[in-house]
Order: sequence, then structure tokens, then C-alpha cells
Amino acid sequence: MAQRIRIFVTGGTFDKQYNELTGELFFKQTHVPDMLRLARSHVEVEIETLMMIDSLQMTDAGRRLILDCCLACPDPRIVITHGTDTMENTAAVLGRGISGKTVVLTGAMVPYQFGSSDGLFNLGTALAFVQALPPGVYVAMNGRYFPWNNVRKNRELGIFEAEE
Amino acid sequence: MAQRIRIFVTGGTFDKQYNELTGELFFKQTHVPDMLRLARSHVEVEIETLMMIDSLQMTDAGRRLILDCCLACPDPRIVITHGTDTMENTAAVLGRGISGKTVVLTGAMVPYQFGSSDGLFNLGTALAFVQALPPGVYVAMNGRYFPWNNVRKNRELGIFEAEE
Amino acid sequence: MAQRIRIFVTGGTFDKQYNELTGELFFKQTHVPDMLRLARSHVEVEIETLMMIDSLQMTDAGRRLILDCCLACPDPRIVITHGTDTMENTAAVLGRGISGKTVVLTGAMVPYQFGSSDGLFNLGTALAFVQALPPGVYVAMNGRYFPWNNVRKNRELGIFEAEE
Amino acid sequence: MAQRIRIFVTGGTFDKQYNELTGELFFKQTHVPDMLRLARSHVEVEIETLMMIDSLQMTDAGRRLILDCCLACPDPRIVITHGTDTMENTAAVLGRGISGKTVVLTGAMVPYQFGSSDGLFNLGTALAFVQALPPGVYVAMNGRYFPWNNVRKNRELGIFEAEE
Repeated sequence: MAQRIRIFVTGGTFDKQYNELTGELFFKQTHVPDMLRLARSHVEVEIETLMMIDSLQMTDAGRRLILDCCLACPDPRIVITHGTDTMENTAAVLGRGISGKTVVLTGAMVPYQFGSSDGLFNLGTALAFVQALPPGVYVAMNGRYFPWNNVRKNRELGIFEAEE
Repeated sequence: MAQRIRIFVTGGTFDKQYNELTGELFFKQTHVPDMLRLARSHVEVEIETLMMIDSLQMTDAGRRLILDCCLACPDPRIVITHGTDTMENTAAVLGRGISGKTVVLTGAMVPYQFGSSDGLFNLGTALAFVQALPPGVYVAMNGRYFPWNNVRKNRELGIFEAEE
Repeated sequence: MAQRIRIFVTGGTFDKQYNELTGELFFKQTHVPDMLRLARSHVEVEIETLMMIDSLQMTDAGRRLILDCCLACPDPRIVITHGTDTMENTAAVLGRGISGKTVVLTGAMVPYQFGSSDGLFNLGTALAFVQALPPGVYVAMNGRYFPWNNVRKNRELGIFEAEE
Repeated sequence: MAQRIRIFVTGGTFDKQYNELTGELFFKQTHVPDMLRLARSHVEVEIETLMMIDSLQMTDAGRRLILDCCLACPDPRIVITHGTDTMENTAAVLGRGISGKTVVLTGAMVPYQFGSSDGLFNLGTALAFVQALPPGVYVAMNGRYFPWNNVRKNRELGIFEAEE
């Protein structure tokens, strides 16, 4: 339980901010450290930002980079923040390539900086699942966890569900 | 994973509200359903309010009631929201009296209705731990989980820690 | 002081919302009634939504409609919520066409629904200025008020200022 | 309009904070500078904290101090943040003792740090009224302004109203 957890940040809605000069959403820095402070979290973590992108922009090379970072990481427990649109695809790449580690992907439907975000809750579930689940690659969304090979985003409802 | 989770509400800082006429903190209704809605949670839960008290007011009879409700509950996974001041005492009563169920107590240092609450994060960790941990009674605070017989609140720091 | 105030809603950043399915900003309903409730406002107001648009989409016909509504309005005190990008242009049309009424335009740099909005503050200043200023057309932003013929938005800084 | 405004801080609900170790409300520092930053205010102000107390603790000596500070202040426009419970009493002392300056007292029913505070709105109205009203002493609450000699707090409803 006292093992350190690695958090890889890749961007996604989670970390989007509002640019008040242009009225557009953009990325600056990750909010994960702020969120853990507000959460009074005392889990030992190391946070590393791998990229800061909308997951619709995620490429095969990007997924390969995330996979390589997971493989090279000495910590056996890894949380990845990721956009929701292609989270299941990245999970599949990681699921096929990683063994012996617990990896949990999570994200948010609403940016953390906005009023009614699910981000803090999701980060809580991801940190808990990564401590308590056996090795494997999972998606943690909507309070639930899904193995990487049985999850999809229902785009009409904006929720994650098992494929059957 | 698809099993229903029972949530027993007992009050605590989690659910305190500000009375703008008197300037005092008080209890009205639990915020747990609002929190799960904001979290976009799709975990199947049944929420039941057992009492609405500050945990400094928790009596032996109150703890006995919580224990009885856990024993009578057909769901094998139970989350209990509870004030932090005596959470470890209630956990001990439950830990000695319950077997074969996963029970997770959680709370908050700051009321959910106030700006910077840890409540949403804690509720997320509790819901995740209760799904993923083996049977036993645990406290989920500060992003971590503690078995009932090895946890105490550090009152100077306002965090939970293992007894050694 | 006890006179009723008319509030004409035209949209703008003030009322933008985040669509969590598409990740885009859009308009649904005005937040002005919610804002006045949170503000514990007891000013007698009548709120009327004239349009719900980004002020970059505001046309001459739109400005003419706002002017006509101001002229037809029996209340001598009018607040108009408006996007900041072309607020000065609408103010100029109203300033040239209206006499004998106090009209105050206001808006926001950040949507009210997002965490750190100036909207509630701006609505407060607009409601106060409209009660206390003599007849005329004004812009209320950044805690200040500007006559319609001496105001411009500084787009680099995102603030309103006198033209000299 | 470009005149500097003095803001005297005296405490009140406005500035109360939640002590997460004791569960009690207390005062630390004023939030007025933070509020003006969030409001993107560009009004020239000088903020001075005179005391940090609940207005039920306000004494005659305290009111005399506030009066002396108003009299000595070179700025002709003054906003005073004050607890709501005895705001009308302080307004009366100031109203009898000050001439030739515009003084506006305001406060909040809910602390600024809590979710649903009226504080930001009230600060906006006070800053606007102090710029636009003729010399005199006023209370600005609930979006309205009241001369010092015709205002009282309705304690059942938690709103300010004219005495008749």
C-alpha cells in the first residue's frame, strides 16, 4: 500500500483551460498537483507530463511513447490521465504490451477548472483502483473500472460501459 | 463488479451546511446523491441515511445501529460516510463484528458545500476501494486505505495514518 | 430606488456553457436568474431574453432589435447582458438612439458556469450603476462605468478602458 | 470616476474561513484582494484592514475607530466591509459623524470561501454605488442601497430592508 504511484499526464478534457482573451479552450499546465492538494492526498506519487493534447490528436507514435514510459517505469502502479475520446484505444495498446503492472487510465467529461467537473472524483477512483486491483490495464470512469479489452465510450450518453 | 453497493450516511463534516441566518454549521440532507450526479457515477448504489450527526456525538448505541445495518444488509459491499473525529472507533466496532463483507468508511475534512472540499475525491476513493478490496473493514482517507485495526487520525495534521 | 429594472439578455460569454459530449461551448438558457438568487438580490427585476448569441455574431438588425426593445420598455432603468467583443458597438447604437433612460451594458470575460468568472461581480456593478447613475447609456466592466461614447475593449489585456 | 476608492475591512461573514482541524469558523486574512482579482476589477483602490471581527463583537470603541479612519481618509469614496448583524448600527454612527464623503457598507450572508456566497456580487454593488451615489452613508445589500437612517436587517429573512 505504501508503494509509490507514477502518474503520467497526457492532457484531455481534465486539464483544459478557458482562454478569456480568445474564448477558446487550451492546455497550459496540468492541474493534477492542485487536485491532489485539494484532496489532501497523502499517497506517494510522482507526476510526469508526457504530452498535453486532446485525445483526438493522439497518434500511434504518442501511444507508443506512453507504452514505452510505462514499460520503463520502475513503479508497478501507474495512473494515466487521458482524453476520453480515444481512451479505449490507448488502453488497448497498453493492455497488449504491458504485464505485471497495474495501469489505470482516467479522464474527465468536464475540465477540472470549470464548476461541475467529474475530474476530482475520477482521479480519486483511479488512485484507489491502482492501489487495490491486481496487475492489468484498466479504464476508470463513472465510478467503475473496466479491463482494457472490454470497454467503450458510449458517445451519445457520454459514459463508459462494458462492450456487452 | 456490477454488484450493487450500499451507502450508509451517518453525517460528519461531509454533509455539514452553513446556516446563513445564524452563521452556524448544521445538517439538513445528505449531499451524496448530488455528489454522485456531479461525478457522473454509474455505479449501482442504494443510499440510506442512518443518522445525521457530528461524529463527536456518536454513541455506542449509534455504532451498534450501524453494525446491525451492515449485518442485515444483503449487499456485500458497503460504503459508510462518517465524521472523521471518531471514524477509527466506529471502524473498530465494525471490524470486530463483520466478516465476509467489504466495508469502507470515508469522510471529509471540509464540507462538500464549501469551496475546497476533499469530499468528492474521498467518495471516489471509497467507491473504488469497496469494489476492489477483499472482504474486511477499512478507512479510506487521504487517497489511501487502512485496515480497521491499524489506523488513527493525526489530529495535529488532520490526516489519517497507520498506527506505526 | 424601488423602481423595477428591466434586464435584457443577449448572450455573450456570461451565459456560455460547456457541452460535455462535444467539448464545445454553447448557449442554452441564461444564468441571470440563478445568479440573482445566489446573490440574494431583492431588486425588483423583469428578465427578458432577446437573443442568445456570441457578440461577434451580433448584426445591425440585432442591435436595432435591442434598441427597439429599450425604446418600447416602460421601465426607465435597463441592464443589458452582452458579449464583450462588440459591446462598445451596441452601446454606440443605443447611446445615439435613447434618451431619458439609464441603460447599462455588462458582460463577462469567463462564463458564469466556470470556476473563476467575473460575471457575478459585473452583474452586481451593472445593477448598482443602473440604479444610481443619471439617464444615459453606459458600459459597466472591470468595476468601472464608461459613457457609451468613450469606451473601448483593449483586446490584448482583455479589459475595458476610456478611449483616452 | 477615476478617483481612488478606499476599502476599509472590518471582518464579518465575508471573510470567515473554515478551520478544518477544529471544524470552526475563524478569520485569517481578508479575501478582498482575491475577490477584486477574480472580478478583473480595474478600479483604483487602497485596501486597509482595520479589524477582523464578527460584527456581534463590534464595540463603541470599534465604531469610533472606523469613524476616525473615515474622517482622516483623504479619499472621498469609501467602502467598508462589515458583518451584517450590526451593520446598521455602524452605519448610524458613521452617518451622524461624516459629511461630504460617499461611504458604502457591505457584507455577505455566506463566507466568500464557501460555494454559494453573495460576497462577490455585494462587493460589486458596493464599488459601483460608491462611485455613483452622492455624498452620504449607505448600506449596500441584496443588490439595493439604503441611506444609513432608513435600513434594518430583517433577521428572520436574512435580508436588508427600509424601515418602512
